[in-house]
This record gives sequence, structure tokens and C-alpha cells, in this order.
Amino acid sequence: MTYYGLHALQHRGQEATGIVTSEYLPEKKRYRFNIHKGVGLVSDVFRDEKLLKKALQGTAAIGHNRYSTTGSSQNEANIQPFTVNYKAGNLALGHNGNLTNFRTLRTQLQNDGTIFQSTSDSEAILHLAARSKETEQVLQIKDALEKVRGAYSLVILTDGGLIAARDPYGFRPLALGKLPPKDGTQTGDAYVVASETCAFDIIGATYIRDVAPGEILVIDQQGVMSGELKSLWVNLKADKPHPCIFEYIYFSRPDSRIFGENVDKVRRKLGKSLAEESPVKPKGDDDKVVVISVPDSSNTATLGYVTESNKQGDNVKLEIGLIRSHYVGRTFIQPDQNSREFKVKTKFNTVKGALKGKTVVIVDDSIVRGTTSKQLVKLLREAEPKEIHFRVTSPPIKYPCYYGMDFPSSQELIANRCGSDVGKIAEELGVDTLEYLSMEKLLESAPGNGSASYCTACFSGKYPVQPDGKETAKDANDL
Amino acid sequence: MTYYGLHALQHRGQEATGIVTSEYLPEKKRYRFNIHKGVGLVSDVFRDEKLLKKALQGTAAIGHNRYSTTGSSQNEANIQPFTVNYKAGNLALGHNGNLTNFRTLRTQLQNDGTIFQSTSDSEAILHLAARSKETEQVLQIKDALEKVRGAYSLVILTDGGLIAARDPYGFRPLALGKLPPKDGTQTGDAYVVASETCAFDIIGATYIRDVAPGEILVIDQQGVMSGELKSLWVNLKADKPHPCIFEYIYFSRPDSRIFGENVDKVRRKLGKSLAEESPVKPKGDDDKVVVISVPDSSNTATLGYVTESNKQGDNVKLEIGLIRSHYVGRTFIQPDQNSREFKVKTKFNTVKGALKGKTVVIVDDSIVRGTTSKQLVKLLREAEPKEIHFRVTSPPIKYPCYYGMDFPSSQELIANRCGSDVGKIAEELGVDTLEYLSMEKLLESAPGNGSASYCTACFSGKYPVQPDGKETAKDANDL
Amino acid sequence: MTYYGLHALQHRGQEATGIVTSEYLPEKKRYRFNIHKGVGLVSDVFRDEKLLKKALQGTAAIGHNRYSTTGSSQNEANIQPFTVNYKAGNLALGHNGNLTNFRTLRTQLQNDGTIFQSTSDSEAILHLAARSKETEQVLQIKDALEKVRGAYSLVILTDGGLIAARDPYGFRPLALGKLPPKDGTQTGDAYVVASETCAFDIIGATYIRDVAPGEILVIDQQGVMSGELKSLWVNLKADKPHPCIFEYIYFSRPDSRIFGENVDKVRRKLGKSLAEESPVKPKGDDDKVVVISVPDSSNTATLGYVTESNKQGDNVKLEIGLIRSHYVGRTFIQPDQNSREFKVKTKFNTVKGALKGKTVVIVDDSIVRGTTSKQLVKLLREAEPKEIHFRVTSPPIKYPCYYGMDFPSSQELIANRCGSDVGKIAEELGVDTLEYLSMEKLLESAPGNGSASYCTACFSGKYPVQPDGKETAKDANDL
Amino acid sequence: MTYYGLHALQHRGQEATGIVTSEYLPEKKRYRFNIHKGVGLVSDVFRDEKLLKKALQGTAAIGHNRYSTTGSSQNEANIQPFTVNYKAGNLALGHNGNLTNFRTLRTQLQNDGTIFQSTSDSEAILHLAARSKETEQVLQIKDALEKVRGAYSLVILTDGGLIAARDPYGFRPLALGKLPPKDGTQTGDAYVVASETCAFDIIGATYIRDVAPGEILVIDQQGVMSGELKSLWVNLKADKPHPCIFEYIYFSRPDSRIFGENVDKVRRKLGKSLAEESPVKPKGDDDKVVVISVPDSSNTATLGYVTESNKQGDNVKLEIGLIRSHYVGRTFIQPDQNSREFKVKTKFNTVKGALKGKTVVIVDDSIVRGTTSKQLVKLLREAEPKEIHFRVTSPPIKYPCYYGMDFPSSQELIANRCGSDVGKIAEELGVDTLEYLSMEKLLESAPGNGSASYCTACFSGKYPVQPDGKETAKDANDL
Repeated sequence: MTYYGLHALQHRGQEATGIVTSEYLPEKKRYRFNIHKGVGLVSDVFRDEKLLKKALQGTAAIGHNRYSTTGSSQNEANIQPFTVNYKAGNLALGHNGNLTNFRTLRTQLQNDGTIFQSTSDSEAILHLAARSKETEQVLQIKDALEKVRGAYSLVILTDGGLIAARDPYGFRPLALGKLPPKDGTQTGDAYVVASETCAFDIIGATYIRDVAPGEILVIDQQGVMSGELKSLWVNLKADKPHPCIFEYIYFSRPDSRIFGENVDKVRRKLGKSLAEESPVKPKGDDDKVVVISVPDSSNTATLGYVTESNKQGDNVKLEIGLIRSHYVGRTFIQPDQNSREFKVKTKFNTVKGALKGKTVVIVDDSIVRGTTSKQLVKLLREAEPKEIHFRVTSPPIKYPCYYGMDFPSSQELIANRCGSDVGKIAEELGVDTLEYLSMEKLLESAPGNGSASYCTACFSGKYPVQPDGKETAKDANDL
Repeated sequence: MTYYGLHALQHRGQEATGIVTSEYLPEKKRYRFNIHKGVGLVSDVFRDEKLLKKALQGTAAIGHNRYSTTGSSQNEANIQPFTVNYKAGNLALGHNGNLTNFRTLRTQLQNDGTIFQSTSDSEAILHLAARSKETEQVLQIKDALEKVRGAYSLVILTDGGLIAARDPYGFRPLALGKLPPKDGTQTGDAYVVASETCAFDIIGATYIRDVAPGEILVIDQQGVMSGELKSLWVNLKADKPHPCIFEYIYFSRPDSRIFGENVDKVRRKLGKSLAEESPVKPKGDDDKVVVISVPDSSNTATLGYVTESNKQGDNVKLEIGLIRSHYVGRTFIQPDQNSREFKVKTKFNTVKGALKGKTVVIVDDSIVRGTTSKQLVKLLREAEPKEIHFRVTSPPIKYPCYYGMDFPSSQELIANRCGSDVGKIAEELGVDTLEYLSMEKLLESAPGNGSASYCTACFSGKYPVQPDGKETAKDANDL
Repeated sequence: MTYYGLHALQHRGQEATGIVTSEYLPEKKRYRFNIHKGVGLVSDVFRDEKLLKKALQGTAAIGHNRYSTTGSSQNEANIQPFTVNYKAGNLALGHNGNLTNFRTLRTQLQNDGTIFQSTSDSEAILHLAARSKETEQVLQIKDALEKVRGAYSLVILTDGGLIAARDPYGFRPLALGKLPPKDGTQTGDAYVVASETCAFDIIGATYIRDVAPGEILVIDQQGVMSGELKSLWVNLKADKPHPCIFEYIYFSRPDSRIFGENVDKVRRKLGKSLAEESPVKPKGDDDKVVVISVPDSSNTATLGYVTESNKQGDNVKLEIGLIRSHYVGRTFIQPDQNSREFKVKTKFNTVKGALKGKTVVIVDDSIVRGTTSKQLVKLLREAEPKEIHFRVTSPPIKYPCYYGMDFPSSQELIANRCGSDVGKIAEELGVDTLEYLSMEKLLESAPGNGSASYCTACFSGKYPVQPDGKETAKDANDL
Repeated sequence: MTYYGLHALQHRGQEATGIVTSEYLPEKKRYRFNIHKGVGLVSDVFRDEKLLKKALQGTAAIGHNRYSTTGSSQNEANIQPFTVNYKAGNLALGHNGNLTNFRTLRTQLQNDGTIFQSTSDSEAILHLAARSKETEQVLQIKDALEKVRGAYSLVILTDGGLIAARDPYGFRPLALGKLPPKDGTQTGDAYVVASETCAFDIIGATYIRDVAPGEILVIDQQGVMSGELKSLWVNLKADKPHPCIFEYIYFSRPDSRIFGENVDKVRRKLGKSLAEESPVKPKGDDDKVVVISVPDSSNTATLGYVTESNKQGDNVKLEIGLIRSHYVGRTFIQPDQNSREFKVKTKFNTVKGALKGKTVVIVDDSIVRGTTSKQLVKLLREAEPKEIHFRVTSPPIKYPCYYGMDFPSSQELIANRCGSDVGKIAEELGVDTLEYLSMEKLLESAPGNGSASYCTACFSGKYPVQPDGKETAKDANDL
């Protein structure tokens, strides 16, 4: 089950993966944690069926896909779930998000004689729990979580069960689901927790509800128990959750439901809103306007864009203008650096007949560095379209993310580099026109109609939780 | 270049792959053939950059992706290109297609004392060439080809150059292209040959023309020389070529140009024709009809279907109803047999919001066994659509292919099993209605407007080349 | 250098191996620890020359071969050297020996909130050092060592240099050596520390002296500095060292010098003493007595036995009666359990011509379980000797070792099982006579002529350091 | 059984290894050949127990260890057993020896249209058999063998059984053995054939007799049938066999019986003869003469040397002066070229205490290039012996071997380079004296007391079978 869940969530992290199961050994009257982790995709790390079916047995399990593009990703000690044996038994942890006071915590703990095994911020949670004066595991973890700040959606495996927790601002999604009883029996219901509901679909589990911001769940033989995190750093009554709006724009899968809404629905709305704000109208009967997506991430938004355009009478046509090769895996040998164009060609090819002589509108979800977009435009030009208009279903990304989205440094962000001058970005990309979705329209299109308090820090620079003085967006990875 | 070409042609064979290069050793004054072959995808077999850049050097190269789902695929001796050293030097061969008189040839050759290394039909060509009385390599190969029957698109590496050949009926595609001179120099033009033009795009080569049915090309330092195969078994003047229509329907990539036309254009036409023949009309204002494709293979045809439907005023909506996981690779561990549904879930997930309560039209390119279609329908039902209508852009597949398409035995073909009773197939798949494209419409939609002489044997049972008595569709693999 | 040293010390541990190097990064102004560890032999784990020469660069290094036959050997977390990053920088540790108060320490540390990564006793030393209030690394380590009991010969890599330490009783050997200056320059002398001097020979280093029991050495740019461990548990002035006599009997290599004497010299003396105590005299002129060794471990002792026998006029002949296959590696597939005889045949074969009709004396260094000896005797019987006399250059092993020698549990020791009844053991082995070397003769034959205070606990049950109440010989491995 | 046999014969070839089994498939009413081959040691190539027990099932099997140090050893196509499917069924072949007319045969066969897969001479036998006009397999093989010249001891697996053959001169050994009936039943006797009898010992088989020179055996359900090869190139009545004397000197294992005698007995005799011819006598009471072997190959001869010396009253002492590391496997990373001394240190270490101040006699079986001997002497010098006397139990090797012993080219042979000037060789090796066993004494010491007609070509240059004009000793490997 965990294997298939990780597989469904592969898009959230392709760097490394791992599963830990908790197996009760009757003869030894204790639990054993079975661990398998490795660098690579889920299907690479878990190639061995025997391993999966024999070695990873047990009554409960957690898994984690690691997402990171920085150097320390090569440190195998950083692959999660982290597993420890401490005074109160075994503990395994999978963490989605980033802590903003990690450097401070690490220094404090080290000065107290703690040895860190990894350079990951997630390890701090384990040491804090191990040092708690509480005797129950869940209270030790609560203790620990009330000392950390920032973004965390956690799954924790204990000897007796599972613990799930989500930070008070609810930056990252986390959902609770249930497996149907096997073979028609009424007993044997099992609960599941995952970042996105698409992991429930693959195993036939039903979505119950989101784990609430600031909630801690204990799942064991008795069922599910809910508690509330009392945080020193956020006034839960006064403040609102700040779910990451970029999950809707790009990160989550369109077939998932997060923060209370289907992702594909939001994404289609973003496409529509973009068409309202920045349509491309034919300049006469001979001007054939075709709209293409960058497969697969902007497919849904592109559908929305086309629908809205035609509703407005713009008479545009949806086309498949780019074919994506899905065989480009981790081990694919890239062409040399001096031929960047070639590089994008290993991933995309144009459907020339669909583009030649047309006014082409390309819809993408976001522009980060701009490098791929630039090459993609160059590739499209070879198919000899009349014009190329670039439309983006999000505002310009100008600020780093401290809560777990792996954006590059500010200087590498094209919108930051070009000083928010959209004309300059358009020029750099080589397109005829470029339009981003406005912030207002973005918030209006997201669930809540502008009333929700999404985290939009990467666009606006307004950070719900200020990082510690020494903390930087990349800190956890840069030790 | 060959590596990237194989990568672009990965869809034509995922079983095994190999590259052979011809390197001139000045100190030894002879050519050495460098070989690397293995079971798996191109990116798996050629993981090692050093290998690619150091070990596989040379002035000419050929590559081959093997396509087979039968047992003998595990025989490593069957991985192409085949390489031999014989009286006239080195020879390497990559073969797309299937010979129909292989069993007869094999018996004759064995009785003459020939030892076969593989169970592949392609090996016979090499032995025939080695036994030719001709002294020039190209004539030895011509000799050999005039003794074999069936389908072959061949690339052959010799000490001095390349040979390409296509059988007189031209069952499989084969195109000739040219690389632009490097660094603006006029010298150094290089020719390339590939099954599909998408392999040219990735390396920046330009399409020149198709290798003609019955043509043999010699490419060396002097350029390209063309010859004609004199066959004992086909009257080239009287008979017409029989290109495989299934290449248009499913096998080739939509961004390729084969048999003189862009594949995506043909595929869009097939979708339109299907909408003309078998539309699904809303039964009132409340009946929302959504059309979905089975990603990615039927995406283009689905676009055509939707365009035509709306042109006819049917007011249907294109939707993304299925999300495909592209991480399911060779090493993916499948769920146990008793949960087939689960199996399809590892590859596809539904976008529930887009399907619930809707009349769903699912467009697919073909139905072979019917197993996947059945599970897909079951999966769609879970999203609670009002109705499900299955539309197929090809006629029912009822007969085996002797020319290289790896269909299962007749008994496993659902259309054959159900005795062409479409109602019965619909019932088995669990859909409300099922419609195939008619043969007439198919031929009318393909280039030539019905005047071309495509091979449609898998639908019609009319075989342009009768296989030898003992030969069966699976023979080459089943020895 | 470390690689070759580990290779020379391969006999001390075949389970797993690892190297850690300390490399100064000028641009970052800090040291980086490069680590490579793995399960298997030195030549298996370090197959990759590039790894050894590129990835493992630096100015100092330590390595460790792991020796264990228990289950937890499969826990990769237990492979040494252990590496940690803590408040005072990096630290890597290689430990030979076993701590006797590990369980007590572990419980104390865990109750204080410490998380253990491995199940190895050696990890406790690192946590104790990390928690020390001292600010200098060497003092932190001293602090830690003064809290542990039992056997330890340690090498520790720090950012600036190396630390070596040996427990106050000096159970395990540890020697200090020096590399000659390269290229005739006077500067650049480098110090080396190893369990046995054979590791110095392979790299051309010169033996200086043993690290003394209770000594701690700091090796850095300034040279070597020596300190004394103040232990709470041993009165260094009053008590004498207790080096392990089994190192002389079996464990160390014959070409090493340990505890101040050449191993081969001691071993030859043991053979001579055994011949004095338990000679096998020909029973007449027709009785040909041949003496054979169990290659390679008892070769030297056998030479001594033969020399002494002939000196006494017994007229015995040294023969090569057993050929050992040196290709039996870790991956060798053993015959099924029901043919134990077969098993010993994969490792040994008899030289029949040398044994047939002879009175055979087989000299071995020790008998542990007795299983191999029994099968060896059975194998020898097939060569049809007249009689078989088994001679052992050590007393019967009856007690577990708490100081790092991996003997099985008491019940599995044949001498324990048979209640010290040598006749019964002889019967079980199937030999005509069996004689062990007496304890008195053993001590008399070892350097010191009986005046030294060797640890003989495995023979006598007299333990120099009592293990903690809960501690057992296998504890460190059995967590 | 075959696996263990190959393991026992590992010393005959460490390059590559393979097993082929013949399994009857009742449902298909035919035999299937199961094959597993690979580069490396037996225990490396057959790591997988499941493979051995499941995949390699059958009623008969053959195996082969490949011995080669030349470049083409890396050509995987050259790994034996070779397996082919031809008109008369399956055939697998393992060949020990070298054909002397291979180049001629290859050219003839290629001109007839034969394609060679490997560069190995052994493949010619298969093509000759496939082209035979005979209908029975054994007669086809006889046909083939009567066309080849040189050295061959062959095992051949057919669908129905086994064929074994040895060339008329009997250069290489080949023995026939028998397995005892299992479980006391009388039926089920199985025959085994192997190069050396040590392969019988490991599996509990009994030696019956040698396969005679010029004999061909067919082993099937009916038992063993013997035939005689009628050769065009050797007059079997007039000429005598020419077994390779180097098998006794070095190549075979001491616990084997070949050419009618125990190897260890011959080797001891060689040592004795050497002591008779070239003793080293103490130059006074203070001159302690110690004799050491180069482990393990010259152990037995050294025993003979010591026994004879002492019989002559020379009062010399056998010592273990060199310790050999048995962990140096294929993957061992060698020190850089510029430190050859270092290289020999990874394999050997001196026991200093046994050598210092002594007159050391080192006994070796042969000197080929002289490189290792030279480094060994240098290593011994470091142990500060008084003098070093080198004694060799064979004459100087001066000529290439055309019959399967992989000597380097003449120029690389030290005895050839130094023009048979023993003084010059001694100087190059850096020894005080050097003595080889004389040719007369060698022949006198081998079974037959000088009356047998051993092949001594490598010492004498007298070749029993002249190679074809173009053939050279390395030809088979150098194509």
C-alpha cells in the first residue's frame, strides 16, 4: 500500500525514497522497524518484489519521497523516513515542509551534546522528542512540535501506531483517509494519511477530511484521536491558516483534492481567469490562433483558457503542439552544456503541422528561472508559427520560499533578475507577448474567492512566518 | 546522435536496445566495431556517459530498439543490432519487421551446416549475405534480401559505411535525413536513416525523403547511392506498396511524418471521421457530454473527435478525465493478479470532478485484448458518470500480423473472441455503447483518400504476402 | 595507504569495511569528511579505483574492518568507522574490542534524551564525547573513555588530526609506526597506527612501538603527543596489562609483531611445547608418522611441532596433507545442510598419496565448535590413514569472551558441551587421540615465560574486567 | 555438481566461467539448454543460489573455466561453453587446449560463408561438426576432430548425453570418474569427466581412468562407449603421446592425479632432484640455511628439497618465510605502476624473524617473465637475510607454447631475453645464486623415468605438432 502511495506521490519528490514498516515479533514481544531507503525513483529503489513482500512486512508503515535539487541531496543520511531508537522505543519520521528556526535549534541541541546524523532540519524534531520529559510518545512529539517553527506536514511511525501532524499555518496539504474493510468484514478498517488524495485513489481508500492546521492525530488500534498543538509562535485563534497557493498552481496533481477543493477545478479556473485578463484575439479571418499547453503540467489550465476564450468569441483552437517524452529518467545522459537547445529537444518535440503559420498561444503554469521556457520558445520558432504569445497562470515568482518549495536563489529567478519588467522578460524569452495572471485574479480564482489567507510569499514577499535571523531559504540543505 | 535517435524512437520498442559503431583504427589500418547492447530502456542500457562518449566512438553507427512481448525476448542473443565478422569484413544489422519465409530459410541454411546464434528471423539475412558469391558487401546483402520475404526496414553498418533497405511492399516506414554541416563549414554533411522523423528532430537533422519500397541505399564517403531490389516474390511494377495503416492509427509518434504525411494530421482526421460516423449527442440541456482521451496515445484523435462533434452542433466538451502516471517503468512491481483493477490504477487515475454525473465519451485508438479497456471502464465508473460511451478510431482487430506488429494470438483478441459482435464486446467492457471506425471510413481518412493500398490485414485478414506454410505470426519469436 | 592497510588486516574482520578521510577545503576553510563503507571484503567494497583516488582524498584517514558473525552484522548502521558532526566539529571512530558496561551506559544516555543510530557499543563513546563539558576534542574523548569499561583499541579522526587510544588492560594490540619521508625530503614524516604491524609492512612504514595500555595519542601537524587515561575502574599502578593470548594462538597474522613479540615465533614455540607435552611416537619401523597442518592458520605451529618431535628422535615427517581452496569467498554457494561433509570439501581436499597407510598427526591452533574439525577428520579418513591424532596448540575453549573475540555461546563450545572430558571430545571428532596444550605450558611458551598477565578468560573463566550485571558476551550485537 | 567441479578447477582459469545444462521438457518433448556464463571467478559468476538450483536444472551438464591473460579475454563471446543450435539439435562445447591449424580452418570456413561469433579457435570445431555430412552427432564431432590439429581435451553436451574427447597426443589431462549411486540404490550411476581428479574429490566421485589420447567417449543412458579418432595428422600407432610436463611442474593441483600419477608425488620428486643437483650447504656452524617456498604453488616441491638436503646431511631448515594474502581478488586495486615493489607487497609479506641473518634458499616451480621473482627477492632483502639462493624445479622457459599454456611472447621470457645465461638472470633477479633443474633430471623425475615422451617444447623448442605457417602461440587470442 505504502509503495503504491509513494508511487502516486512521485511528482512531489524524485530525489530519493524510503519506506519503514513496524512489525510485531510475537516471539520477542516487541516491534521491529523494517527499513528500505535509496536514491532514485520509487520504482528504482523498490525493484525487488521479494523485498517489498517479505522484508517490509508489518502492521503499519510510512513512506517518504525526497524532493531536493541541492548538493546535500547526495548525502544518503538525508533520505527519509528517519528512524531512531530512543528511550521510549522506535520512531520513524517523514516530513514535508521546512522549519524556519532550524539553525537556532541545531546550535542549541549541539551545545547540549546532541549529535546530528544528517544535515536535514527534520532531524531536530526527533532530538527534541527524545529529550522531552514526557513519558508518552505522542506528548513527546507534541513537546517537540511546540518548539519548532515553519512548515511541516508529518507522518510518524511508532511501535504502536501512527502519528500525523500539520503545522498551525497549514502550509502543506495533509489528508486523512480510510481503507474499506477487506472481504466484506466489518472489522479491520485501516486509516491512511497522505499529502494528496491521489494516493488514496490508487489503493482504493476513501478521503475523510484534511488534517487541520495545528492538529495532531494519533492512529492506533483504538482508532483515530485528535489533539491540538499549542504553539508559542502562532496565535491560532487570531490568525488564519496560510496554505501554499502554489500547490494549486503547479505542485499537486490535478486529480487530487487539497485544501478542500479539487486541484483540476482550481487549475481550470486559473486558465479561465487568465483568458479574461489576457486574451489573444485573432487579427482577422486569416489569423488562426491555436492554444497549446506545456504537457502535462499546464494541460488543465489550458483547457480552461480555451473554453473562456471561445466563450468570449475569440475563436481559438486547442492544439497539441508539443509532444513530451516520458522516457527521460534520472539516468538519461544529457547533451553537452553548449547545446541547451538540444537538451530541451530530448524532452519535447513540436508537432510542426499544428503550428506552422499559426498565431500560437502557449499556456504555462509558472516561470521560475526561465531557462526551459526560453528553449521551448526557440523550439517552437523552428516550427515557423506566425507569432508566439506566452501566458502564465500565476504572477511572477520573485521571492524565495522558506516553507518547502525548492525555488532557486533570488538572483536566478528571471522575474527578480528582470526587476518585474514583463517586457524585458518577454524579450529574454523571445516571445511576441507575455502576460502573467495578476495577484488579484489569482486570489479571486482560488477557493474562498479572495477571502482565504493563502501564502503567496513567492509572489508578494509577504512571509507569514519570519525565518530566524540566520535562516535562509536553502539553509536546511546548505549545512 | 544514435543514442538520442533511439531515445526518440523508444515507443517503437522497450524490450532491449543496442548501438554499434564503426571506428577506424589508423595504427591497425582496419575498422573496429564497438558494441553495447542490453535489456531495458535506452536510458537504462546506456547509463554510463563514459561508455557513450569513449567506448562508442567512430564515424558511423546504427542502433535498434527491440519490441517483443514473448518469452524469447529474454534471450540476450536476440538483442539487435546483430554483429558478425565474416569473409568480407564486419557487418551489423538492425531490422524492423518480420520475415514470412523464415522457417523455410532456417531449415535450408541449417541443413547446409549453418549455425544459428539467435532465434530471430533477422539472423537469416546475415547468413545469406555471408554465403553470397558476390564480392562486394552491398551486392551480398542485395543477394540476401532477394531471398527473403515479408516486412523489413533495415539499417546495416559496414566497415566503410551504411546500407539501408526497405522491403518491396514498404510495410514499415523508413526515412532518409541529413545533418546540417557543423560550424558553418560546407563539408561534413552526414546522412541519417530512421524509422520515424521524430528521430531527426531531436538531433536537428532535416527530413529529405522516405526510403522507397524496394529501395536499397548505400551511404558512404561519396554520399548516397540508390539501388532497386529485384525480388522473386513481388512484381514491383504491377503491385502497389502496402504500408501498415496501424502505424498511423497507433504505433508511430504523432510528431513524426511517415508514408508522406504527418501522423498527427491523420490521427486528427480519424477522430473527426469517428465523430461523423458515431457521434454521442446530448439528450437534453441537462445532459453534459464530456469527451476524454486515453492519454497520451489517443490525445490527438480525441481533439479531432471533439472538433467535429461541435461542428455538428453536438456541444460536447473536451475534458481531462484520466491522469496517467509516467513513472511506471520496467521495474515497477505490479499488484497481485487477483486485483486487476488495482493494476490499471497504478497507471491511470480519474479526475472525479470532471466526470461525475456526466455522459462520458472515451476515445481510444484501438482495442486489442480488451483487458485494459475493461479495467479503465471500471475505474471510470467509480467516478460516477451518467453513461460511458466507448469510441475507437480503428476497426476491430481480428487477425494476427505477420509483418512485425506484436499482436497476441487470435484467441486473445477480444474482437475475434466475440465473433465481431460489437454488442457483446460492449457488454464485456461494461460500456453503454461501443463504436468502432468502419473500414471504409478508415481508408477514406488515411492519406490517398481510399486510393492507397494500405495493409489492413489485422482488420480484414487480407494478407499482401502469404506466410510460408509453417510460418505463424509468432514464429520468429517462438522457435 | 589506508586501503592497503585494511587489506593487510582483512583477517581481523571480513564482514564489512570502511574508510573515512579528512580533507581540507581551502575555499570553505573547513574540513570535509569523505566516507565510503559497505558490507563485504576490502576488495569488494573498494572496487572503484576512481572512488579511492578521487573521492577519498585528504590529509588523514582511518579505516576499519568489521568482524562479526551475528545477525546484527546485517545492520548497515553498524559498519565502522562511525562518523558524526557535533558541536566541536567532525569525528570518525574505529573501534576494536568490546565494552563491558555498554548496556548501562546506553540506558543512562537514552534516559538523558540521546538517540542511538546503531546497536554497536562503540557509538556510546561518541555520545559521551559530545556531552563532555571540555572544549578540546582530545579532552572530550578522554572524558568519554574514562567512563567506559572493557576492551578498546581506538583510532579517531578529527578535523585536525588523529587520536589513538588503548584501554588500560591492553586487551587488543595497537601499534604506532612511521612512514619514511617521500622523495628523500626530510619534511613530511607521517605517522600510522594499526592493530598489527603487517599493515605497516604493506605500505613500507616502520614500526616504532606499541601504543601502551591506558595511553592516548594525539597525532597532528606538530607530531605525536602522549597522554594517560585516568580510569575509574582500573588501578593502573597496581594492576598489570592483560593482553589477549588468543591473538598469539590464532587471531593475529604470523608476520605481525604484537605485544612486543613476533607472532610466528610464539606460534612455533607453541608447536614445540605441544610436541614436548603430547608427542606421537612411531610404534615401530613400519609406522610412518606424518604431521600435517590445517592450512594456513596452523602452518607455523606445525613446523615447530615437527622440529621438536624430530629433536626428541621421534622421526616424524612434515607433509602437506590438506589443500585449501582460497577461492571460497563470501558469495560461495554452500551445499545443502544435509551434506556437511560436502561443505568441508569445498574448502579442503586431502592429498591421498601423502596420507594412505600413515599415522597422521594433525596440528590445529584451537577447537571452537568442533564442527569443522569433525568433518575434516571424516575427510582425512577417506584417504585411509592408519591412525589420526589430533593436537591443539591451545587449551580447551570453555568460556565466552567479553573483550571482542566472537566465540559462540557456551553451549556451542565443544569443550564446554563435553564437560572438559577430552576423551569424549576425541570420540566426537572421531580421532584416535586428542591432546590440547596445557594452560601452564601455554603461559610458559608465551613471551614473559609465565610472568606476564595475559587474559586467558576463554580457557580459564577468569575475567580481568567483570561485565556489568546485564551484559553478556554477545550483548553489543544482540540489542 | 558442475559448480563444485568448476570451483575445484578454478586454478586452471580465473578469467571467466560458465555452465550449460541439458533439461528435458516433457510437455515440449525436447531438450532445452540452460546457460549461465560470465566474466570472473566461479563464485562471482554463480552468486545466485536460485539460479544454480532453479535455472540450471537438467540431467546433464558441462562447465568451463576460461584461462587467458590477453586482451580478447574481454570479448564476452569467447566465454565457454559455446552453445549452438544446428540441424541435429543442441550442442555445447568446453575446450581445454589450443588448435594449431585454426587460422587455416577459419579462412576456409569463412570463404564458404561461415560466420564466426567469437575469436576463439574452439568455435571452428562446432562449424566443422555442423557442416559434416554424417547424421549422428557423435560422428559429426568425430568428423570435425579429424580435421583439427593441436591440443584439445573436450567436453561436449548433446541433447541426449555427453561426449568427451582428447587429442591424439594427449597434451592436456582428462579423466573419467563415476558417482556412487544415491541412497544405496543400484541404479542411477552417473559418469563424470574432468581435467583433474580434484574435481571428483569435491563431489565424492571415484576416478576410473584417464580418457586416452585419441579417444572419444560417448556417455548416455546406456553408459559409456569408447571410440578412436582417426587422425590425418598423427600416426597413432607409430607415435607416442606427448603429455604436457608443465602440468606436473606447476599447472595442476597437487591433490590431483593426472597422466597416471599423483601430482604432489611428482612435485616432491622434482624438489628432491633439485636438491641433488643444486644443494645449498651451510658454510660453517654459524651459517643457518633456511629453505622457504613461494606459497602455495611450490610448497610440495620445497618439502622434497628440504627432505633430500637433510638426507645429504646439509642440515637445512624448512621455514615459512613468506605469507601470502589470499584476499587479492580480481577487483583488487593495484598500486600505481611506478611502485612495483608495492605491488608484490599486496600479495606477499615476509616473516622477518625467520629470515634475518639467515642463508635463505627460495624454491619456486618456474620463472616466466621474472618480474614477480625479482620483486620477491627485493622484498626478501628487506628482511635482511645473509644470502639469497634461488632454486627452480624446472629448466628455463625459453619458447612459446602452442598447446594452451598462456606464456607471454618469447621476448618477455627472462630466460630467452638473457640468452640462457643463468648468471645474467641471477644478476637481474638480484640473488646470490640461481639454479634451474636440468632437462635430464626433469625427465628422470617425471613418471616413466625418462622413458616417457612428454611435451617439453617450452624448455626445448621441440614441438610435437608444428603449427600452421601463419599460426603463432597467441593466434587464437589475437584475432
